[in-house]
Amino acid sequence: MAEATVLSAQRKIEIRFNEVDMMGVVWHGTYPAYLEDAREAFGAKYGLSYTRYIVENIFAPIVDMQIKYRRPLRYGMEPLVKIRYVNSQAAKIIFDYEIVDPSDNAVCLTARTVQVFMDRDYNLLWNAPEFYVKWKKSVGLI
Amino acid sequence: MAEATVLSAQRKIEIRFNEVDMMGVVWHGTYPAYLEDAREAFGAKYGLSYTRYIVENIFAPIVDMQIKYRRPLRYGMEPLVKIRYVNSQAAKIIFDYEIVDPSDNAVCLTARTVQVFMDRDYNLLWNAPEFYVKWKKSVGLI
Amino acid sequence: MAEATVLSAQRKIEIRFNEVDMMGVVWHGTYPAYLEDAREAFGAKYGLSYTRYIVENIFAPIVDMQIKYRRPLRYGMEPLVKIRYVNSQAAKIIFDYEIVDPSDNAVCLTARTVQVFMDRDYNLLWNAPEFYVKWKKSVGLI
Amino acid sequence: MAEATVLSAQRKIEIRFNEVDMMGVVWHGTYPAYLEDAREAFGAKYGLSYTRYIVENIFAPIVDMQIKYRRPLRYGMEPLVKIRYVNSQAAKIIFDYEIVDPSDNAVCLTARTVQVFMDRDYNLLWNAPEFYVKWKKSVGLI
Repeated sequence: MAEATVLSAQRKIEIRFNEVDMMGVVWHGTYPAYLEDAREAFGAKYGLSYTRYIVENIFAPIVDMQIKYRRPLRYGMEPLVKIRYVNSQAAKIIFDYEIVDPSDNAVCLTARTVQVFMDRDYNLLWNAPEFYVKWKKSVGLI
Repeated sequence: MAEATVLSAQRKIEIRFNEVDMMGVVWHGTYPAYLEDAREAFGAKYGLSYTRYIVENIFAPIVDMQIKYRRPLRYGMEPLVKIRYVNSQAAKIIFDYEIVDPSDNAVCLTARTVQVFMDRDYNLLWNAPEFYVKWKKSVGLI
Repeated sequence: MAEATVLSAQRKIEIRFNEVDMMGVVWHGTYPAYLEDAREAFGAKYGLSYTRYIVENIFAPIVDMQIKYRRPLRYGMEPLVKIRYVNSQAAKIIFDYEIVDPSDNAVCLTARTVQVFMDRDYNLLWNAPEFYVKWKKSVGLI
Repeated sequence: MAEATVLSAQRKIEIRFNEVDMMGVVWHGTYPAYLEDAREAFGAKYGLSYTRYIVENIFAPIVDMQIKYRRPLRYGMEPLVKIRYVNSQAAKIIFDYEIVDPSDNAVCLTARTVQVFMDRDYNLLWNAPEFYVKWKKSVGLI
């Protein structure tokens, strides 16, 4: 059954020197970039890249982002960011994230992002665009 | 009564060219910096700067950040970020934010951040540090 | 005489917490943004904004950037960035910069950027575009 | 002979969505981070990491950075950044860089950075620190 399909991906985070703040930990505002890296990895794995949206003249802006920081990342750590697609019937793209420290499997951060679809003039699309519905079918989500 | 005290601040956002993405709008991951600018403005207004925390050897890391994006900001806009202190008896610092487009008073973004207190070794402090309690008294919050 | 015209501008730098690195000083890669802020201030003062280039379908990409770092900036400092237009007969936009610590007038950084003109397809323009030549005349540079 | 020793490294650049500006190309101020990534790769290959400097209480700040931008990078490209150690008898660390588009081997950018050594109080060290001299010997540079 489609509901059972779980799409997920992960990638290593390479912490940049400039992402670490005066306190010696990754600055909290850096994480949206790591989450974006995860969406990239997801898109690459399942054939749904930013470039595709651009070609289709569709924006998929983030309208909601919730981040819970549980443990700071320090320079030199090699964390993983994991992303999981949350299936929804609404015209939304929902992802859940975890950043994990592989040295002890501690969850350092959890997050959720919600994206909607807009046309070139920033009008909200109430239905998911055709290319996206096709993609959902192709990966077994509907 | 202390509950009635409302502490708030605001400042103009100067949108940098590099904060705008390929889609012509401010990249969603830029906003944590704008929220931090607002906390800075708040701290400057009410005498509670980052420097103070550093002197006291206290971290106040963000443990929760929720952002709702309602309308994209574009290059050339001159939005305001408004910050309001949310009083809490817990050992937490809670702020609510709004980013407003002054041209039509539209709310472009709302957000909340929650900070906790940690010592130099990243141990959570269950009680707010003394300097912070003093500050709360000095501004009429307790 | 036109050669004698000196166009310059300056603005205060507000050092963001996230621009400071683990070493407690502004990360060296932050400075291009400060220089861009200075170009913005220059453009605002003399009527030559990015928006104008966009309207004209002209890119003015930086092709050369040289930065000499003399003294680190620390969080809490309130430096000034000064920008000076370097007149040139070539189809180039050249700026010199200084970042100064007003507390002792020390020069913390000097820099130069060179921009060229390109059309929408990234073809180099060998002559400055008309709107730019008009602007140079209007401010007394030719 | 030592002079003949050439130390170099390279790594793939993963262009982030947020590193691309309104013009559709990587923002010029992003490149210092790419150069830093290259230094990281160099350090990892030859055993000379930032962490080492921190342990030794030595700063190695960049005092000079020169970048020549030849061809813009666009989102979706997979460029390489190449770094080469420039041996010097002075108490300096000099690197040359090239960013190359592997699709046609075009050089998109060249750069040079110069670093000096400082102690914890930002005093310039006129001689390279011992750990660094040892490192140079260990890799055949002296």
